Amino acid sequence: MKKRVAVIGASGYSGEELVRILLGHPHVELVAVTSRQSAGQSLAQVFPRFGSHPVARALRFTEPDAAALAGQADVVFLALPHGVAAEFAVPLLDAGCTVVDLSADFRLRSADTYREFYGHEHPAPALLARAVYGLPEVHRARIRGSRLVASPGCYPTSILLPVIPLLRAGLVRPTGIIADSMSGVSGAGRKAETDYLFCECNESVRPYGVPKHRHLSEIEEQLSLAAGATVTIQFTPHLIPVNRGILTTLYLAPSEAFSDAAGAAALGARIAACYAAAYADEPFVRLLEGKALPDTKNVVGTNVLELAWRLDARTGRLLVMSAEDNLVKGASGQAVQSMNVVLGFPETAGLL
Amino acid sequence: MKKRVAVIGASGYSGEELVRILLGHPHVELVAVTSRQSAGQSLAQVFPRFGSHPVARALRFTEPDAAALAGQADVVFLALPHGVAAEFAVPLLDAGCTVVDLSADFRLRSADTYREFYGHEHPAPALLARAVYGLPEVHRARIRGSRLVASPGCYPTSILLPVIPLLRAGLVRPTGIIADSMSGVSGAGRKAETDYLFCECNESVRPYGVPKHRHLSEIEEQLSLAAGATVTIQFTPHLIPVNRGILTTLYLAPSEAFSDAAGAAALGARIAACYAAAYADEPFVRLLEGKALPDTKNVVGTNVLELAWRLDARTGRLLVMSAEDNLVKGASGQAVQSMNVVLGFPETAGLL
Amino acid sequence: MKKRVAVIGASGYSGEELVRILLGHPHVELVAVTSRQSAGQSLAQVFPRFGSHPVARALRFTEPDAAALAGQADVVFLALPHGVAAEFAVPLLDAGCTVVDLSADFRLRSADTYREFYGHEHPAPALLARAVYGLPEVHRARIRGSRLVASPGCYPTSILLPVIPLLRAGLVRPTGIIADSMSGVSGAGRKAETDYLFCECNESVRPYGVPKHRHLSEIEEQLSLAAGATVTIQFTPHLIPVNRGILTTLYLAPSEAFSDAAGAAALGARIAACYAAAYADEPFVRLLEGKALPDTKNVVGTNVLELAWRLDARTGRLLVMSAEDNLVKGASGQAVQSMNVVLGFPETAGLL
Amino acid sequence: MKKRVAVIGASGYSGEELVRILLGHPHVELVAVTSRQSAGQSLAQVFPRFGSHPVARALRFTEPDAAALAGQADVVFLALPHGVAAEFAVPLLDAGCTVVDLSADFRLRSADTYREFYGHEHPAPALLARAVYGLPEVHRARIRGSRLVASPGCYPTSILLPVIPLLRAGLVRPTGIIADSMSGVSGAGRKAETDYLFCECNESVRPYGVPKHRHLSEIEEQLSLAAGATVTIQFTPHLIPVNRGILTTLYLAPSEAFSDAAGAAALGARIAACYAAAYADEPFVRLLEGKALPDTKNVVGTNVLELAWRLDARTGRLLVMSAEDNLVKGASGQAVQSMNVVLGFPETAGLL
Repeated sequence: MKKRVAVIGASGYSGEELVRILLGHPHVELVAVTSRQSAGQSLAQVFPRFGSHPVARALRFTEPDAAALAGQADVVFLALPHGVAAEFAVPLLDAGCTVVDLSADFRLRSADTYREFYGHEHPAPALLARAVYGLPEVHRARIRGSRLVASPGCYPTSILLPVIPLLRAGLVRPTGIIADSMSGVSGAGRKAETDYLFCECNESVRPYGVPKHRHLSEIEEQLSLAAGATVTIQFTPHLIPVNRGILTTLYLAPSEAFSDAAGAAALGARIAACYAAAYADEPFVRLLEGKALPDTKNVVGTNVLELAWRLDARTGRLLVMSAEDNLVKGASGQAVQSMNVVLGFPETAGLL
Repeated sequence: MKKRVAVIGASGYSGEELVRILLGHPHVELVAVTSRQSAGQSLAQVFPRFGSHPVARALRFTEPDAAALAGQADVVFLALPHGVAAEFAVPLLDAGCTVVDLSADFRLRSADTYREFYGHEHPAPALLARAVYGLPEVHRARIRGSRLVASPGCYPTSILLPVIPLLRAGLVRPTGIIADSMSGVSGAGRKAETDYLFCECNESVRPYGVPKHRHLSEIEEQLSLAAGATVTIQFTPHLIPVNRGILTTLYLAPSEAFSDAAGAAALGARIAACYAAAYADEPFVRLLEGKALPDTKNVVGTNVLELAWRLDARTGRLLVMSAEDNLVKGASGQAVQSMNVVLGFPETAGLL
Repeated sequence: MKKRVAVIGASGYSGEELVRILLGHPHVELVAVTSRQSAGQSLAQVFPRFGSHPVARALRFTEPDAAALAGQADVVFLALPHGVAAEFAVPLLDAGCTVVDLSADFRLRSADTYREFYGHEHPAPALLARAVYGLPEVHRARIRGSRLVASPGCYPTSILLPVIPLLRAGLVRPTGIIADSMSGVSGAGRKAETDYLFCECNESVRPYGVPKHRHLSEIEEQLSLAAGATVTIQFTPHLIPVNRGILTTLYLAPSEAFSDAAGAAALGARIAACYAAAYADEPFVRLLEGKALPDTKNVVGTNVLELAWRLDARTGRLLVMSAEDNLVKGASGQAVQSMNVVLGFPETAGLL
Repeated sequence: MKKRVAVIGASGYSGEELVRILLGHPHVELVAVTSRQSAGQSLAQVFPRFGSHPVARALRFTEPDAAALAGQADVVFLALPHGVAAEFAVPLLDAGCTVVDLSADFRLRSADTYREFYGHEHPAPALLARAVYGLPEVHRARIRGSRLVASPGCYPTSILLPVIPLLRAGLVRPTGIIADSMSGVSGAGRKAETDYLFCECNESVRPYGVPKHRHLSEIEEQLSLAAGATVTIQFTPHLIPVNRGILTTLYLAPSEAFSDAAGAAALGARIAACYAAAYADEPFVRLLEGKALPDTKNVVGTNVLELAWRLDARTGRLLVMSAEDNLVKGASGQAVQSMNVVLGFPETAGLL
């Protein structure tokens, strides 16, 4: 028996990617997709690349209607702007659906932090305690029993997976962390804004959102949980001319100082062991070996995050670099991974 | 004494390119730029890349006002949508200004053809007879005495310069001409439309506007003038992921058949002589030699059109290929070239 | 029981794409990959993006050795340069293997044509009669019984699938056909040549190989078979800055003239019926409807060819436009599709 | 009287850009260009985009020959690999030429540091003391009297111009500096290597050369001079899919702590004053105002470096971001700027 799934807000880049994954998923059936602007059209009409799939030819976009969807679907994905997602989550949860939310609405434990970073009151603060942060490699056990999964942001995923094991093991200090990220343009969504026109992005690279990007809130909350102390980080996103992919370079201070090759070797062994313990058996984290460094082209279209690290004896720092597809491991793939955990499917179902 | 020039509609890609050229032009002074959306801001604020130029720091965008501009400027460039340009041209001409219009409003002799291709009545049909088609290599003498120059479209320039000399010389037949063109995305203008977002254009190539693109009207009118007979052509534009550049491949039927190397050599000598007579002394047409073929990267940022041709003894056809920068020789550079002709400046002033 | 497959020449773009498809194929096991330059390294080391697949971590490149491979594999794919592929095909066929060749070595029936277009004697002319041209939509029955499949070139696929049904139905004339194609840079292979460096291709579009590209030989041979008459076509390839994708625009002359909307409607109905009869049930040909036109971004990464057409009453011509991924339907995907046919697997196995 | 200039190694990207600038320079005449691989061909043949310039049509590449060039040119630019440049510098200086070297050979004061970072003995250590580091905004007076200018590397320029004034003013600490840079592919030179093929760079972003890139040597030597103390920095370069442009984000620790808006305002005023004193009158440094952040597309093709900064009260850090064209301000434009200083031309000659 396949589970019935719906996607609310299926016409953006994350929604489209969710549809792609769900159409190929062996244990679910896509029963509804919504989009105000595309209502009445079939998936195949709006996204010609799905045109060879019979479900895409048959399934038409509808206006979003929580009550109707609650009767049709067991699982509902929300690919909506923050603030709007919560409105749909409440009635769907009440109706017994499992909700996987790709917006920021349920990622924070604190409604105060939400207000500070998102500029308005949280629309459903009572639900914050019920939600689980959908990073399966970190919170798998809690996701398993949840019916409200807050799927992480793209930048946070690229930072949290590399840093959390090190903080938990006490290998790096919780202070002074710097994350420098480069993202493809799909991260801005399918919005008709001049800033994201081809000619404005091609042959361009630029920082933006400095120094206080909204994603800082969930990054710092999750890092603080891992460190057992308040963590404040420096985060600089840059926009680069690729469709997909995030490359993050992290600058960390090891807890124990080192200043020569021998010190680096000893510390390096502990870091390697820490990452191996955390991720060697994880299907979606690839620990690079030898001279290999992350490259977004090796992860685009997959749910994999690539990770490599280097100790610099000249400066005493640890550099960790990660690469992911912002729309897959950074959004829709990870959301499906969480759904697999919730429903007890093999965690890689539909994602290999 | 420098001439005073103004640009109406200076916030689009063609307008910005006009500003770039005019800021560096030795014989003119940029005295006014207009843009509804940018009114009040300086050129340097809207276009940071001009920020090192003192005029760009001082000059502020104003609301477009023909009466005010007529008093300020000797020459006014109109970088406006079709239909709107004509409204400004009338009072500016009446006030004694020279007008160089980059829109389609004055490119056609026939108001009927305008209605057929642009879908509305021509806003100032009485002016059509006064306008000259601003292709200096073809209509230089008429441009010299004109005060209303209709600067050609980007695709038309890439087709007309290669074909007109051959038609005039009777070397190719006026029937069966095919033009297959590829254009960079700036050709669509700085419009906030989903179709031109980075992620929709990058890693994509697609035809559009087939089979009846608006530019056909001016292409066919000009080719008919050259041939002395009605010419109907096939024209297919494609959108490719570059900022700038048009590459056009033309398929032509030589007037005299040939089917072997000797025939090709004889005909080739006549074609070479025809092009040399037309363009050897033209500063902005580059006849490629040897094995060289046009490449947009060799013309981007310049007012040059590159041209190469091949006879195919297998099919009996003549192939002509051209490359240009759609914003320079295909728009703003050519407009300044026409202004130079009108005002008696060296034709290359500001364009090398 | 899975079939054992090997890929000779697995380090180029087509070879890498073959590996990707075969690693995910449900009915085959990848048992050997060869590459002179990568011998000794694992698939995961050479192609980090496969690093999460256990076979890719275990399987190491070997030196190409036909005798050794013949003992290991039931099916061998040759992803080698022309001239070299034939050397491997002979002993592999003798040893009882099924051979799917992605080079040009067995695509032609005529060794004379091979010499004319490839500049050297055919290395194994006796095999030409045994080979079948691996275009399943056209030659499915013959592929089914074959052990030597010559998988078509990328450009030929984008031309033959649109034109063959029309020629077979007598709807277009076999003379005067023009094919104008744009290809992504992966079509040039993973060759360390200056012409294909990032900075030489990015922000560039250029024709090449005019007027006599090697692919003409197989295009014309296959079109002639379909037409029952010798067909000579005009073909112009262009290089555009995308990784993958071919867009082809075809100019055809309908057998019956038309010059108005009524004539176009009548002829259009016959063309639509012709394409529907040929492709409505084909899983890898997508006939676009309504206003949709092909776009490479809708087919990249898939084995699908998109197709749309327009009749132009102004010129009396039929335009057909196709889009495909040059490495999938234009190379490795189609090769696997042929393998599926030969081995009796579902034709879409591993390709959806 | 124009000065006669030559370019040794004119077929790479820096050499080509030098040629472009020198062809348009009002006070010099390009009299010789050398290239082993292009010897015998004209500039116009090798670089079609210069084909409209008479000098480019007339001037042919020669084999590099220091003795011959010494007799022809007053100023010689060396656009050669490190290690090779020094061989040419010695005889040219002996013959009385002014030498502007774009390689790393004369950028360091210490032959030991050269050996450590470049892996071989310095080929002409006696010249190190004679050379001046060609960053005019910092060493203008010393450049004026020099005959051997070591033009800075691309990454160093993007780091030194933002950091040196702050160090000199004591506004930031000399410890813990981090520079995170993204560079276009032309920075790798016109080398036929697989890593820089279009398909390997497009849709890719990757770090490289971590943690000890060669450019660190000159960056740290220059920063140490400015700080009056040994400076060790963290530097991470990334390769992104643009032709040109470097974006650098710097993380700095202000000398005086601040932790609220008032503290930030007070410190910000001092930083603004420091930068204004250093660069307000510099034609090639653009201090951005308001919300503007650097974007490589605003500087590509120009000799300008854009600069913006932000204080982050959450972390107590100062962020400085810069953008430049790696081939112009990061290489050939800056080399010409130094030449202008040496020869007493207006510093902006040929560069606006």
